[in-house]
Amino acid sequence: MKFCSECGGPVSQAIPEGDDRLRHVCRQCGYIHYQNPKVVAGCIPEWEGRILLCRRAIEPRHGYWTLPAGYMENGETTTACAARETLEEACAQVEIGPLFSFLNIPHISQIYLIYCGKLLEKQYAPGYESLEVRLFDFSDIPWNELAFPAIRKTLELYRQDRANHRLRVHSGDILKREGRPGDPHFRITSQEISGTD
Amino acid sequence: MKFCSECGGPVSQAIPEGDDRLRHVCRQCGYIHYQNPKVVAGCIPEWEGRILLCRRAIEPRHGYWTLPAGYMENGETTTACAARETLEEACAQVEIGPLFSFLNIPHISQIYLIYCGKLLEKQYAPGYESLEVRLFDFSDIPWNELAFPAIRKTLELYRQDRANHRLRVHSGDILKREGRPGDPHFRITSQEISGTD
Repeated sequence: MKFCSECGGPVSQAIPEGDDRLRHVCRQCGYIHYQNPKVVAGCIPEWEGRILLCRRAIEPRHGYWTLPAGYMENGETTTACAARETLEEACAQVEIGPLFSFLNIPHISQIYLIYCGKLLEKQYAPGYESLEVRLFDFSDIPWNELAFPAIRKTLELYRQDRANHRLRVHSGDILKREGRPGDPHFRITSQEISGTD
Repeated sequence: MKFCSECGGPVSQAIPEGDDRLRHVCRQCGYIHYQNPKVVAGCIPEWEGRILLCRRAIEPRHGYWTLPAGYMENGETTTACAARETLEEACAQVEIGPLFSFLNIPHISQIYLIYCGKLLEKQYAPGYESLEVRLFDFSDIPWNELAFPAIRKTLELYRQDRANHRLRVHSGDILKREGRPGDPHFRITSQEISGTD
């Protein structure tokens, strides 16, 4: 951020009075530009025990496989976002179920919220952000070609829960390890859900 | 948003190619400025069956009572945010427990995440955003002087769960009713947690 979105003046980093961290502050009008984490919502679209994955047509991770998921828009809910992203990336209609994984990724200032999902019919096609969309058995999931750690961890937990015939909700943090960029540390709590009303 | 934070050029609203909604787009350099919902995280600090509330020293809702909660910062997790806000607003150290309520508020583009919390000692004081901080029995909570619907709903659910001796996790949406600004519609699912590992 170089210019103020309110007055067009020059912006520099400073700690405002009463604050304790650096912010982008306009040197002309004094406006403080806060920056906050972004929420990514998506789902695990299932059809007869198989999972729908999308191969990315965009950066980052072009060509790698992922679950349909994307940034929440202003004015929408997390479940609406998960359904919209599935429609946009996989041209598929889903019924969004319970929350499955809730993962903080502080080093990139993101929160991932991935819901259980049920394909309403066996119809899907690549949207404009996907090269290819395909249903996978758990044994065929391309584990080494998944786009993001949050997606790989979510799919591993889902495979495990399905094998144990109990879906849980998994929440926690994905932390960067110093000097080991490809090898994040997972700190996750898994809770069983026993009843809903 | 009137000016581009990248080049200082004039910004206007337009639907970018391949998109389907209005964005703030720079007429000079073409940069698209996306806007996304903000996450508010906080906790229900409990001490021997009583709840710590803060009376707000800032707008909006100056003078009204609330749970310690605030906007997540870049680089932090939701639980770290909940603990930080409790320290800032109530000068109190808490141990953050399981997630209690997870509420989308789409008409103001916010998500509330409120955790169970345990005061580590009976020590608290108003931080710079609070006029007053006090422990309340459930019967004494100032129900008509609470700052926000998400806080009132969270405290109602918590009182109910405590009375039933079972804490659940409550997720859903707070929706605005047309023409009835003070009377939102709650669409909430409550799930019992039976085991953690």
